[in-house]
Amino acid sequence: MKISLVVIGDEILLGQVTDTNSGEIARTVSVANWTVSRVFTVGDDAEEIKYAINAALEASDVVITTGGLGPTKDDITKSVLLDIFGGKLIQNEDVLRNVEDVCRRRHIVLNDLTRTQALVPSTARIIQNKVGTAPVMWFEKKCGDKEKVLVTMPGVPFETSQMMREEVFPQLLSRFGSDVTVAHRYLLVYGIIESKIAEMLDEWEKALPTNLHLAYLPVPGYVKLRLDGIDKDGASINALLDEKKAQIESILGDAVFADENKTIAEILIDRLKAKGYTMATAESCTGGNIAHSVTMVAGASEVYYGSVVSYANDVKIRVLGVDENVINTLGAVSEPVAIQMAKGVAKVINTDCSVATSGIAGPGGGTPEKPVGTVCIAVHTPQKDLVGTYFLPGNRGRVIDRATTTALIELIRLL
Amino acid sequence: MKISLVVIGDEILLGQVTDTNSGEIARTVSVANWTVSRVFTVGDDAEEIKYAINAALEASDVVITTGGLGPTKDDITKSVLLDIFGGKLIQNEDVLRNVEDVCRRRHIVLNDLTRTQALVPSTARIIQNKVGTAPVMWFEKKCGDKEKVLVTMPGVPFETSQMMREEVFPQLLSRFGSDVTVAHRYLLVYGIIESKIAEMLDEWEKALPTNLHLAYLPVPGYVKLRLDGIDKDGASINALLDEKKAQIESILGDAVFADENKTIAEILIDRLKAKGYTMATAESCTGGNIAHSVTMVAGASEVYYGSVVSYANDVKIRVLGVDENVINTLGAVSEPVAIQMAKGVAKVINTDCSVATSGIAGPGGGTPEKPVGTVCIAVHTPQKDLVGTYFLPGNRGRVIDRATTTALIELIRLL
Repeated sequence: MKISLVVIGDEILLGQVTDTNSGEIARTVSVANWTVSRVFTVGDDAEEIKYAINAALEASDVVITTGGLGPTKDDITKSVLLDIFGGKLIQNEDVLRNVEDVCRRRHIVLNDLTRTQALVPSTARIIQNKVGTAPVMWFEKKCGDKEKVLVTMPGVPFETSQMMREEVFPQLLSRFGSDVTVAHRYLLVYGIIESKIAEMLDEWEKALPTNLHLAYLPVPGYVKLRLDGIDKDGASINALLDEKKAQIESILGDAVFADENKTIAEILIDRLKAKGYTMATAESCTGGNIAHSVTMVAGASEVYYGSVVSYANDVKIRVLGVDENVINTLGAVSEPVAIQMAKGVAKVINTDCSVATSGIAGPGGGTPEKPVGTVCIAVHTPQKDLVGTYFLPGNRGRVIDRATTTALIELIRLL
Repeated sequence: MKISLVVIGDEILLGQVTDTNSGEIARTVSVANWTVSRVFTVGDDAEEIKYAINAALEASDVVITTGGLGPTKDDITKSVLLDIFGGKLIQNEDVLRNVEDVCRRRHIVLNDLTRTQALVPSTARIIQNKVGTAPVMWFEKKCGDKEKVLVTMPGVPFETSQMMREEVFPQLLSRFGSDVTVAHRYLLVYGIIESKIAEMLDEWEKALPTNLHLAYLPVPGYVKLRLDGIDKDGASINALLDEKKAQIESILGDAVFADENKTIAEILIDRLKAKGYTMATAESCTGGNIAHSVTMVAGASEVYYGSVVSYANDVKIRVLGVDENVINTLGAVSEPVAIQMAKGVAKVINTDCSVATSGIAGPGGGTPEKPVGTVCIAVHTPQKDLVGTYFLPGNRGRVIDRATTTALIELIRLL
């Protein structure tokens, strides 16, 4: 089944907001082995919206639009929908009640602009938005001899995410559901770049059966491999995937550090829970991003106790107990300082394990010996300590991201 | 001038990678008052890429493609470009040397797949990629009586970002440059929702001259207003914008807390520098995200000394000096605990100012009295302390983001 997306919003074309809804929708429908074949992104302009919706309807069975329905720009998209699907605007009492409820829950006074969200095309079937004010609208239209479906979603990411998973995807499934089994296996690879992995797996990949496919998903700091299989018979496809996955593992060796489709932080938390360990972080150049990555995982508090962001050297010395002489002689960006930070924070926060970073995130602060991107990372467990100096090039955000990922992966590998 | 983007990559359609290049390109060209009119996102499929490039060339003067040129999927996009622009693949010695240099700098062994990046269509003008291996290619083609330009950019965000700003945009400017002056004013508004602001500014907006335009840019936690003006005469447009901006400020009152086009963290750091103050953070539910937001700003270390992420109550008590009895009687999510955290961290880290958060980010941990999204935020300066309980609904990531933004804005307002 072909799905096209139409993303509507000047704010996206202007680069003020990044479209994350398309990815969320794609990940949701991938469970049914459906893929998004095209995304059209246009501004809040009737002609542009009409062009994109018509091109999308022509190219696919299902069109999902996001955005273009806020209280301040409502009428443009709705007028295009009336134009394409016919009907007229009518007030929907259920939507009005929902808008009133949402405003009450958010302690917001309902005004006339927000009230217009209850005006919907008479040709649409309405799906109540449980988490926001813009209703989801479901249209059907015969194009040639094919019945096409168009669903409008709000632009707000958490509304689209929840409505897609809980309402729209289940309804699409029951309308277009297929009976094949699709299964995946994941391999997370550290320390080998994408093109080198491709070279190592070249022979193996050429011998893959046609119902299997290997996808390379580069992520800053590591490579995620996804092996997809599709078959009428669920048992046999799963057995085949397990066999092929084991082959990759033997080719790539211990560069494969995990086989779950989870974030690095989720994998780390699982490993800590399995071992009964707790963890703390001491961050200089990553400035809290490791703590943030770990605490984004629900339930992190079971194993993650806290962090000291020791941005100033004085905090490294006073709070973490790093030796002032070592900072003065070797500099804050040095392996001995990183290892003292790791041991110090495990003591201060009172945990079994810890990671510590000290580096130069840039753009300033680099020297010929320690250029921007130089990061010392230390990892501490009850059994072993490990420290290394990494060169992670890029701009400030990229250095911080890669240092974060590297620190978490090094701890996963040590556990 | 009309610009269309073609974003190429299965990983984007599958939702494994979020496209941030389009926004980056849009923000870069906005300086010349150019806007991106359409974005076509397609997979690594020759037919789809060809469709998108042709549709984009038809709709616009300049087409910029991103992605589709990695070492593992190179040939598809290049074959489409040969098909559309003619010529044949030739080895470019400068590109080969650049690929060799980049690999050497990154301590990567050059393999045959990476070497293919030096094969480029003979019809392309090559712009060396200073920060990666895929060269930027510039094509020109007469469509009807109009000369169209197509530029291919790499998919890696930091490469595209840097090459766009330093090479492609300057070259597009000298080819298509215009002579009008475009200017903007920004107003950051806190505590009033978008639709209410629209209502308050309705009369004022109706009276705006046609060369002025107000854009609403909702961001989690506040609303950013951008007032755009365009004119042949730079001095008069700037005077007009200043006058109109002052009118908005008088309508919205002290809900306007800043007038810079900067992140909240950048604004906070500027204010701290201006006052000669230093700052620390104590984070429970935000788990390091406030520290991360602040330290993403280059030069933050001048005023930002560090953070204690006190995820466990034991850390709040031992490291920050929060009274154990208060936690036991009122709970960790309470205003007295937040204020003790703020004062405690300012003492431990030794700073003038601080912010502290304690709340329930969810999905678990909520109660009828303190549902998920309840966050106590305390702000401390040498002159004044402030604490409040906020209800910030949404999923875990959204609660963390909004609590972070709210904490930073409350400190900005207090300074």
